[in-house]
Order: sequence, then C-alpha cells, then structure tokens
Amino acid sequence: MQDNKPRVEEYLERVGVTNLRTIVVTSWKGRACTFIPRIELTLDLEESRRGAHMSRLIESITETIEEEVAKKRPSLEEIEKAVIENLHKKHPFKKAEITMDTELVIPKKTPKSKKNTFETHDVSVAVTYLEGEYKKTLSVRVYGNTSCPHAMSQTKGRTHIQRAKTSLLLETSFDNPIELEDMVDCVEKGFSSEVYTLLKTEDEVYVVEKMFANPQFVEDVTRDVINSARKRFPKCRIYVKTISEESIHRHDVIASGSTIS
Amino acid sequence: MQDNKPRVEEYLERVGVTNLRTIVVTSWKGRACTFIPRIELTLDLEESRRGAHMSRLIESITETIEEEVAKKRPSLEEIEKAVIENLHKKHPFKKAEITMDTELVIPKKTPKSKKNTFETHDVSVAVTYLEGEYKKTLSVRVYGNTSCPHAMSQTKGRTHIQRAKTSLLLETSFDNPIELEDMVDCVEKGFSSEVYTLLKTEDEVYVVEKMFANPQFVEDVTRDVINSARKRFPKCRIYVKTISEESIHRHDVIASGSTIS
Amino acid sequence: MQDNKPRVEEYLERVGVTNLRTIVVTSWKGRACTFIPRIELTLDLEESRRGAHMSRLIESITETIEEEVAKKRPSLEEIEKAVIENLHKKHPFKKAEITMDTELVIPKKTPKSKKNTFETHDVSVAVTYLEGEYKKTLSVRVYGNTSCPHAMSQTKGRTHIQRAKTSLLLETSFDNPIELEDMVDCVEKGFSSEVYTLLKTEDEVYVVEKMFANPQFVEDVTRDVINSARKRFPKCRIYVKTISEESIHRHDVIASGSTIS
Amino acid sequence: MQDNKPRVEEYLERVGVTNLRTIVVTSWKGRACTFIPRIELTLDLEESRRGAHMSRLIESITETIEEEVAKKRPSLEEIEKAVIENLHKKHPFKKAEITMDTELVIPKKTPKSKKNTFETHDVSVAVTYLEGEYKKTLSVRVYGNTSCPHAMSQTKGRTHIQRAKTSLLLETSFDNPIELEDMVDCVEKGFSSEVYTLLKTEDEVYVVEKMFANPQFVEDVTRDVINSARKRFPKCRIYVKTISEESIHRHDVIASGSTIS
Repeated sequence: MQDNKPRVEEYLERVGVTNLRTIVVTSWKGRACTFIPRIELTLDLEESRRGAHMSRLIESITETIEEEVAKKRPSLEEIEKAVIENLHKKHPFKKAEITMDTELVIPKKTPKSKKNTFETHDVSVAVTYLEGEYKKTLSVRVYGNTSCPHAMSQTKGRTHIQRAKTSLLLETSFDNPIELEDMVDCVEKGFSSEVYTLLKTEDEVYVVEKMFANPQFVEDVTRDVINSARKRFPKCRIYVKTISEESIHRHDVIASGSTIS
Repeated sequence: MQDNKPRVEEYLERVGVTNLRTIVVTSWKGRACTFIPRIELTLDLEESRRGAHMSRLIESITETIEEEVAKKRPSLEEIEKAVIENLHKKHPFKKAEITMDTELVIPKKTPKSKKNTFETHDVSVAVTYLEGEYKKTLSVRVYGNTSCPHAMSQTKGRTHIQRAKTSLLLETSFDNPIELEDMVDCVEKGFSSEVYTLLKTEDEVYVVEKMFANPQFVEDVTRDVINSARKRFPKCRIYVKTISEESIHRHDVIASGSTIS
Repeated sequence: MQDNKPRVEEYLERVGVTNLRTIVVTSWKGRACTFIPRIELTLDLEESRRGAHMSRLIESITETIEEEVAKKRPSLEEIEKAVIENLHKKHPFKKAEITMDTELVIPKKTPKSKKNTFETHDVSVAVTYLEGEYKKTLSVRVYGNTSCPHAMSQTKGRTHIQRAKTSLLLETSFDNPIELEDMVDCVEKGFSSEVYTLLKTEDEVYVVEKMFANPQFVEDVTRDVINSARKRFPKCRIYVKTISEESIHRHDVIASGSTIS
Repeated sequence: MQDNKPRVEEYLERVGVTNLRTIVVTSWKGRACTFIPRIELTLDLEESRRGAHMSRLIESITETIEEEVAKKRPSLEEIEKAVIENLHKKHPFKKAEITMDTELVIPKKTPKSKKNTFETHDVSVAVTYLEGEYKKTLSVRVYGNTSCPHAMSQTKGRTHIQRAKTSLLLETSFDNPIELEDMVDCVEKGFSSEVYTLLKTEDEVYVVEKMFANPQFVEDVTRDVINSARKRFPKCRIYVKTISEESIHRHDVIASGSTIS
C-alpha cells in the first residue's frame, strides 16, 4: 500500500515518527549516561511513493538502542548516526533527520560554600543526513538572570532582576567535536549571574552581589553569548535567543541573533 | 446503548466533555464582554447506566450560548447556571459541574505617567449543582513580583527579585456577589509590587522603588492575600497559592494555605 | 543607556517583546470580532546601539489597538501593519515583525441534522516589514482525522482511526487577499473527515461512514492540502505539516512539505 | 529573618520548592534505574514563623540523592521517605510532602511478531508525613484507545476510534507493596486495546481486530479500571480518570470515579 502511487504527487521533505519517548544509554568518557529523550525521526518521500513504512523507522531506533547498550557509543549524536545508518538498510531516502530532546544533569559546586549541587538543562541533539553527508545540530537552553542597567541608572543602583533563559544552537559538521557542557558554560557567562539549585546564605550573597555588579540587558546577554560562541566553537553556524521573564511586566522580552564562526 | 446496563457497575462522579473551546458573550454592567473559554461540563452517572449522552451535554452549551447572546446574561456564572438548567431538560443527574477557563482583560492607568494599559489575567469560573443547590468557584491567577527580605538583610539593601504568580480561589454560594476584578486587586496588593504591561521610565522607577520598599517572601504574599481575602470576600472557602520563579535558582518556591471567611 | 555603544558589537535580528496578551477588536466584513491574542513584536538592532526602547514597542501596540477600535480596521494584519507604522515614528529599525497567535471561531451547521455548532481553530497572523516592503504570514492549525489505508487493506475493511491536526502556513505579499476561513476549509478537505463540536446520532453515522470511505495516510493529508493550497492561494510560499495522533501507538506520525504557488 | 514573626499570622499548609529537576538512581530488584524527576518538597509552616529555610529543603534532597546512590535504595518512595527523614534533622514541621513526577520505561514484546519494544509512561510517586505517620500516593498515566460502541451499533460494525489516556492513582500506607508496573497493566486491560511503540503488520492487524472486538465507552474504561484496581490493590483509596481524545470532535470526553479497596 505504502509503495503504491499516491493520488496526488507531491514531494514531502519530512515523513516519520515524532514524540516517541524511550530510554537511551551512552558511555560518555567511560561513564554510563542515561537519557529518556523525546525522539523525532523523519526521511524525505519522493513524489511517486504513497507512504513511508513507519514501523521500519521505529525498528531502526529500537534495534540501534539495544545494540548501543552493548557497544557503548559515547554520545547521543553517535547513536543518532547509527540509527540513520540502520535505516539505510530498511528504507530508501535521500534525506533523513533525527532529533532527541532531553535533559542534561551537570554536577557542580556552590560558589562559596563549595557544596555539591546538580544543575539540569534542556538540550537537543540532532543529526541530519543528506546525499552522503552527515551534519549535526546541538542546542542547550540554560537558565540565568538579567538585572536591568537602565533601571539601575535611574534609581541610584536599585533595579529590577528576573529569571532569563538563553538558547544556544550550533549547526556544524558531524565530526566537529563539541561538548554540551561547554555550550552550557558559554551561555552561563553571558548572564548577570549564573544560577544554582542549592545556595547557602554566603552563596546567595555572592550571587546577589554579582547580579548588581553586572547589569545586563537581554540584548547584552545574547550578544555576549554570540561573541563568545564564535571564539569557542569554530566552524559552526550559531543561533542565540534570550528570553527575559521581566519581573515588572506580565510579558517577556526577547533578543536573538545569528552568525557563523 | 448508553441507557443499557454496564458490564461493571460503578458509580462515576464526573462524566462529560472537556477542552471544548467556543465563544461566549456576556453583558457585564451593560457592556458586551467576549470570552473564548475552554469548557468542561460533567454530570454524575449512576451505577446501572452505561453511558452519558454526550451530544446532549454539548447541545445544552450551544443552545444556551445562542440564547444568552440575546438575553444578555451579565456574567459567566449566570451563563453556566443556565447551561445546567438546560441540561436538566435533556439528561438525568444528581450532580453537575461546569467550568470555564478564560482570560480577563482589565484596563488600567500606568502608576506615574497615567497612560492607558491593558492587563490580562487567567481566570476560571465554575458552577456546581448538587441535589437542588447551586454553588460557584471563582479563581484568578495574577502575576506580580517578590523581592527577598533575607537577601536584603545580608547585602546592605541589595536583593534578588523575580516574577511570581498567585492563585486566589473562592468557593461560595451562587448568589454571593463577587467580582473577578476585586479578586485580582486583592492578589495584587500582596506582592512586593504589582506589574504593568506598559511602563515609561518614571513608572519603572516607581515600581523598582516599591519592590525595594516592600520585600516579601513567597510566604508573606500568600498570607497577605489569605488575610485580605477573608475580610473582603465573606462567606467563602478561600484557597491561595503563590509560586515565585526565583531569579537565583532554576526551580520555583511555593507557599499555599486555605481558610474560611 | 539603550542608545550607548554596547561592550560587544553584534547585529541582532530580533529584539522586542513577546508573550504579551491583550484584547484586539477588528471589524471583519462590518461585524465586530474580538480576539485575545498573544503578541510578539520585534525589530532589528544595529551593532552600535546597546538596547531597544522596549516601552516604545509596547506603546506602538497599545496606541494602535485603541485607535483601531475607533477606526474599525477589518483584519488582524491591518492592525499589525498599523502597529509597525506607529513604531516607525518612535524607534529606528530596518526590519520589524509582529505576530498574533489567537483563536478563530467559525459558526457551522452539523452535516445531517443541520444544527448550529461553533468550531474553534488556532490561527496565527504575522506581518513583517523589511526596508520599505510589507509581507504577511498566515497560518491555521486545524483538527480532523485519519483512517489508515494500510490497516484497512489487511483486515477486511477494519482500520485504526485517530485525531490529526494539520498546519497550513502561507507567506505572501501584504496585499494578497486571503481569508483564514478559506484556509481552514482547504485543510479540512484533506482529512478522512472533518470534525464537529456537536454531532447528533445521524451526524455521527455520517462522519464514521465518511472516515471509512476515505482512508488517508498522514502523507495523503499533507499532499492533498499542499496541492489544493497551490490552486486556491496564488502567489504564496506554502508550508504544510500534519501530525496524526496514532490510536495504536503512544507516539505521533508526521508528514510535512512546502512549495510555491 | 525566616524565624521572625510575620506581619500577618496565618497557618500555611505547604511551603517549599517546586519544579526542581535532578537525577535519581534507584536499585530496583538489583538493577540500577535512572530517573530525571521533577520534584516538589513542601512542609507546613506555623502561624508565628515568617518563612521556611528553603536551602535546607534542597540540601535534604541533594544529600539524600548522593547517599542513596551508595546505599542503593530500591524505589522512589524509599528515597522520598529518606529525604523527609533527613529534613527532620534540619527544619521543624508537623507535615511534609514530597512528589516526584517522572517517566517509567517498560520493556515489552510486540503481540504477534514478538519483537522487543520499550513503552514509556508518565508516573508520579509521592510520600507524605503527618505527625509520625508516612503514607504514599502512586499514580500512572497510561495511553490506550477507545472504539465507540454506540457508533458501532449504528453503522453495521464501523465506528470511531481514538487515543485515550487513563490515570490511576492509589493512596495507601507507606508499607503497602505496590508496583508501578502492575498499575500500568491494570490500566491497559481497561482499554479497547493497549498500544505499542513498535507494530509490524501482523501486530497492527492484531490490535485493530482487538479494538473492534472490544468497543469501550470512556465510562467503560474508567469503570473496568476502578473495578480491577479494587481487587488487585487492597487497602487503597483509588481514583481513576480517563480522557478520550475523540477522533470525530475537537474536544475530549472524560469519565472519572473514586472508591476504596
């Protein structure tokens, strides 16, 4: 049925499965890392073929995940590439794309009391295949804060402060070695202050003073992250977006930009 | 089919339709007010009846909404009561409940520059019928901010500030006259400062200074709203919850309490 | 402060406000239509300017909305263009973009019993300005259903059926006259059947029989909508995406494509 | 500051942290299980104490999670109880509650082809402490489907089918041994058919035929799950809610009930 001619012939860029949740284990620097990503896997469909064989897309995921537990692939993008390689044996396509949206937990020390804390970030790892070539797109969405320079200049050093989140997205060749942890660090340095899950009183004082010493517009955060990403992540297309959840408004403010490193 | 005996006889407290979106017009103090609520309408189902006639629930909504445009009922709860009265003619039940989740837009002046601004709040209006008696549950979810008293005491008057949202829920008899606008006002007075969609520089200065003059823990906000609601809204069961979206953390803090006025 | 030089000079493509909710009234074919959209308004920021004056963006919205109530502009895109025109008087930019995400309610008759029903759709209307030229992007997200042709061929006419949603997005010149209602109609014709808020038994029979007479893969729906949009909406860039919420799986299936009419 | 008297004295039932995400490892039947839950931890606050020491709540989580990796506690509820025990050493309270919302992945075989598949469910595990006693609340939210008996009787065996989700919640003493896997199984048996991530053609035929052989109203699903839970999970308060995402409507239908086993 899927191999029949369709009534209407149109090329489809992306056909497949989405919102598929499963468990994936990597062996990152020798340590088992567990993720429960939300997966989208699509391929392109030529004009004259009515449908994709969806169960083969799913098998290419489930078989690879099982294999990988054994083979201990080091990263999500290595597993994603293996899924597309597996799919090549099952289904014709010129283009394929797989994305995993998941969470990355990074252990850290609190800034002054030096206690253990864990910081959780939303991350997304995608691999695309197009006519023989693999590329990847890595993104992190990191929380921090902004303290407003304009209000500070109008009120003798007082200001409004708020939670902000910045997305950093890097599009690059599959083999360009980039660590999500470095991307998180690159973003955190753009905020008025980075944030922590645990803060004892001395740590809280440190963060408050840092926010007042370093007022940043939403535009400043985005620019600092773009500028720093250009230096730290060569040979990438860079996209940065910051949303600041204003404490004096019901709405948010936004600043985004893109460049190539 | 719905009137048959079910294979398994269990009493069901709530059977009906949910996530139904439509347009509702009220005549609030003589002025037409348009809402596009998300509606849930349920009734109870006795052990020996297999199913509810769902299309009759929907007709009780669609017929009432059309009627009401003509009759110009003044409020969402009046329309909801009319839906349940209509449902009485179509379907047996001992208990029925209808909820509309929607948005309330309130015109306001900015605090210093006195410009026009519109403030939008999430509100929910529910009417329940139980064996002859109608009750209502009104709730508003309002944004404001908190500035931390503890950090302020540790850093010579600096502190962290963040967006916060407080829900105030009132359960009372159908005829107890309560305005959603008053509930919004009651909540806003609990924050370090209320917030505005539009703020010119002089207004921004006013809000920043108010936040520093009025540091509030999340617990303070919830207590102030409980205490004030008890005085302003007699004969109600009161429930208040505040969530403060901490600017120094990735997580939120929460404080909730309940009482009777 | 905003007019100062920033520490780091980077061009920003989009700076502004987002998630701003307010009330907007249009005069669509002479009838007042009320929307409570979620608005994003951004402009570009040159390398050498530190920040946008955010309150001027908000004023360009609030002033235009008030004016428009009086002037009775016919559509959301006319109001959006007026916002950008107003912003020109307040702030420098080369590029500006405004988007309103809202809900469109369309009155309809049930297919057989001919009763009144209201159908609510998510819609999005955006206007962009770039160096003297205005363009618009209209999109609708419409619910319908798919019944699987493959399962039907394997089980003597039985199959699995599920809710599906299709987005149709059209990018075109500001003056190309396109009605959101026509876009909804174009999408609904692609499903196994369109869906209704109210269905009496005779209507339900009609919809069930239509679904079995018209099995559609997710790919078929997307292709039919692309093909029909190309004919109905000349001089547009067309993008179509369908997500089918499979009743036999936990995940969804997806098909998307794009073209130019 | 937190230990001061508040300006307004009101008892607060729940004060603490929410939306805190971190990594938790259990040793379930000897096998390491990794979760990345969203955590809420609250305690009650007496009238005369201004605030909770939020960082102590967080420390009680972070310290316990680290310990637990070593001690290998078998379940999320054991870890949650340990968090509350730790909190007892740091902070006064009469009542405390901790909830973890997370995902449970269960390996399974496809029904006919007997291939490996993984099924992911939303689960929630809560422990409450009140004046010396620990209780727990376990819940699962499971996807399946409904095929409508009423439409089937009107159209010679054709019908509408849709994805449905059922929540089963059990409130019981801490020591009542209940497995989330059994709760998932209890729910899945209530649907027209359970669903699978992977289905080869022979499996798809099996599921389609099962759905047609077993038409279920949303009310039938909820009643079957209540009835079965009463037998399988003794000494619990049971709450069941099913939402069926109707394929012939834009809205959903709902049925809920509760009982005691």
